[in-house]
Amino acid sequence: MDYNAKLDIAIDRLHEEGRYRTFIDIERTRGQYPHATWRKPDGTDTPVTVWCGNDYLGMGQHPVVLKAMHDAIDATGAGSGGTRNISGTTIYHKQLEAELADLHRKEAALLFTSAYIANDATLSTLPRLFPGLIIYSDQLNHASMIEGVRRNGGAKRIFRHNDLDHLRELMAADDPDAPKIIAFESIYSMDGDFAPVEAICDLADEFGALTYIDEVHAVGMYGPRGGGVAERDGLMGRIDIINGTLAKAYGVMGGYIAASAKMCDAIRSYAPGFIFTTSLPPAVAAGAAASVAHLKQDQTLRERHQTQAKILKLRLKGLGMPIIDHGSHIVPLIVGDPVHTQKLSDMLLSEFGIYVQPINFPTVPRGTERLRFTPSPVHGPKEMDALVGALDGLWSHCALNRAELAG
Amino acid sequence: MDYNAKLDIAIDRLHEEGRYRTFIDIERTRGQYPHATWRKPDGTDTPVTVWCGNDYLGMGQHPVVLKAMHDAIDATGAGSGGTRNISGTTIYHKQLEAELADLHRKEAALLFTSAYIANDATLSTLPRLFPGLIIYSDQLNHASMIEGVRRNGGAKRIFRHNDLDHLRELMAADDPDAPKIIAFESIYSMDGDFAPVEAICDLADEFGALTYIDEVHAVGMYGPRGGGVAERDGLMGRIDIINGTLAKAYGVMGGYIAASAKMCDAIRSYAPGFIFTTSLPPAVAAGAAASVAHLKQDQTLRERHQTQAKILKLRLKGLGMPIIDHGSHIVPLIVGDPVHTQKLSDMLLSEFGIYVQPINFPTVPRGTERLRFTPSPVHGPKEMDALVGALDGLWSHCALNRAELAG
Repeated sequence: MDYNAKLDIAIDRLHEEGRYRTFIDIERTRGQYPHATWRKPDGTDTPVTVWCGNDYLGMGQHPVVLKAMHDAIDATGAGSGGTRNISGTTIYHKQLEAELADLHRKEAALLFTSAYIANDATLSTLPRLFPGLIIYSDQLNHASMIEGVRRNGGAKRIFRHNDLDHLRELMAADDPDAPKIIAFESIYSMDGDFAPVEAICDLADEFGALTYIDEVHAVGMYGPRGGGVAERDGLMGRIDIINGTLAKAYGVMGGYIAASAKMCDAIRSYAPGFIFTTSLPPAVAAGAAASVAHLKQDQTLRERHQTQAKILKLRLKGLGMPIIDHGSHIVPLIVGDPVHTQKLSDMLLSEFGIYVQPINFPTVPRGTERLRFTPSPVHGPKEMDALVGALDGLWSHCALNRAELAG
Repeated sequence: MDYNAKLDIAIDRLHEEGRYRTFIDIERTRGQYPHATWRKPDGTDTPVTVWCGNDYLGMGQHPVVLKAMHDAIDATGAGSGGTRNISGTTIYHKQLEAELADLHRKEAALLFTSAYIANDATLSTLPRLFPGLIIYSDQLNHASMIEGVRRNGGAKRIFRHNDLDHLRELMAADDPDAPKIIAFESIYSMDGDFAPVEAICDLADEFGALTYIDEVHAVGMYGPRGGGVAERDGLMGRIDIINGTLAKAYGVMGGYIAASAKMCDAIRSYAPGFIFTTSLPPAVAAGAAASVAHLKQDQTLRERHQTQAKILKLRLKGLGMPIIDHGSHIVPLIVGDPVHTQKLSDMLLSEFGIYVQPINFPTVPRGTERLRFTPSPVHGPKEMDALVGALDGLWSHCALNRAELAG
């Protein structure tokens, strides 16, 4: 058995499809983000501006977060030293869970090492709690939700993206007495479009289903206290399980669910992905708690974030660039060809010091390959001018289409 | 549909089986571990000594680790801000992967947010790389390996724990041309027994199988540079994929695999659990790298660790206590009854300030319920005296058996 030959086949397939990833080595300098240093493969360094990070609000360098992390390291040390059950529960974890429960106005919250594992572990555990459960899952749900839904081996129905008629049709066709849950995201990160949250809650009520929302691209950024789209729309009370991340707008690491005390207790007790893993380092929990607490109050940062996104979209639209605009903070610029997208990304990086990853199939459908920009409150006018100027020049240089694809 | 009633049923089941977990809230004080503060449910605090943590060598409070974390926060901030592919690869991640590859004398290493997800993601991805793969998995493998093996939906064979004849029988019964991998642990944490690593490698050679070893309870602690049991036994070169953790002996957080460059490249490219999750915070990577580097050199700490375990086992044996002794650093004391085990744990905590979690079914077989002690170089003679004295007294007080179960 030639195992290496099989690995070659697997890796070659990615090269052939233009999907082989080369990680760009980026070192941020505290206080200067989005400015960073790109260490090139030849070992030399060059300054770049990061335009594709998920530190949406710059909280990853906020003094209140860094101080909380330093303080926790000084007070308690590095790691937690155990799973939550075996010596790994600290006051830092409990404080963070209390902050998160309060954020979402739920009785409880449960920390995981990432929002990926929070989705995977929770969705795969629900069928054990509700025998016969049918999961209705939006077609464009994140990989972590897909893994969780698939893994349970239970019944699943995939509804067409944001298609309420299809969802209704699927639910109506199932046993009215079967336990059901609708799993979806509030903002889909590739197009930046919103789910029809209220209408989904209405359908859930009609069919007696639970609701599960992934707000990883919304928590910290939407709602008067950063509770996400459901908070903004006054719908948190109608969502049974809210999934969020501490690694994007909150700038640190980790994921969670917020739900009823009973629900959190059951997930905590049955999910292997929660039970059998070392808890987050106290310093990570402390930094995240400080970030969540800060963003409950700092509405200014959220407003500047939205303003920055609006300005960038307006300017790109003004140049006839084919961006997608659903009114969220995410700015996808459609290139429509994997080779062009990679080439543009390469040129932006090497010629203009602008770092934005190309996004290709299968992350997005073929023909919609794109660059995806994440403007933030820490991207100033100078950085925005440089980006818009570079894109304008490259677009003409490469004779790419304008306008006709613009949303 | 009364979902709450179903949650009640799920939670009640745990209470009935004596498996409901109540997390003990423990706050360590940097520099004073294993001493810590127990925050009781009534809000009052009391000092305790932690005897069940996985910070086996006390590296979670080692100055070299804490300094690396502080420095990284000062230099670069809190979170990485992205997945490894989208702005989340930094020099800290690359340095840590280089340290780990070097530790295991492999071409490459790949970081995950935990060893749980490293096992789950890697084992569930292998069947995509090697179509038709058969996974031979030890019956007592950790939950994360079981999840990974199950999830792939591919062929699996469970061999009786450490039973080479059974493994051989299973392998001989399968298609000689099918790709195969044997997945096992070097030290099983509940009994502290070792796998017959060399004999398993021999079988792998005979049947043309790959080898996958989980060394989470061994890295940092065994081998002249902390490379684990495989390093100690001169067998690292015969293992294809080594899984390890940064959250136990290394005292921080995160997990990894070390393997050939091709293998890591393929896992990196195909595993959703690697691709779609935010990378570790730079400070966590920096702290872990410092810890790994330190333990490559500090043989003294490893020797003191083994000595401590030997002393504790000797003293408990001297009192006729039924401990299991396979020569590893793990000290399981068999109680043999779930109620007694819980009661002993409660009394040790409340009356003696000694914190050790009870371990019950299904983590261990019924009738072998136990307390599991993790002595470390930072547990001094005074702490050991207190533990042995308390156990001796309680054992007599509770009229528990001595000697006959002692290994």
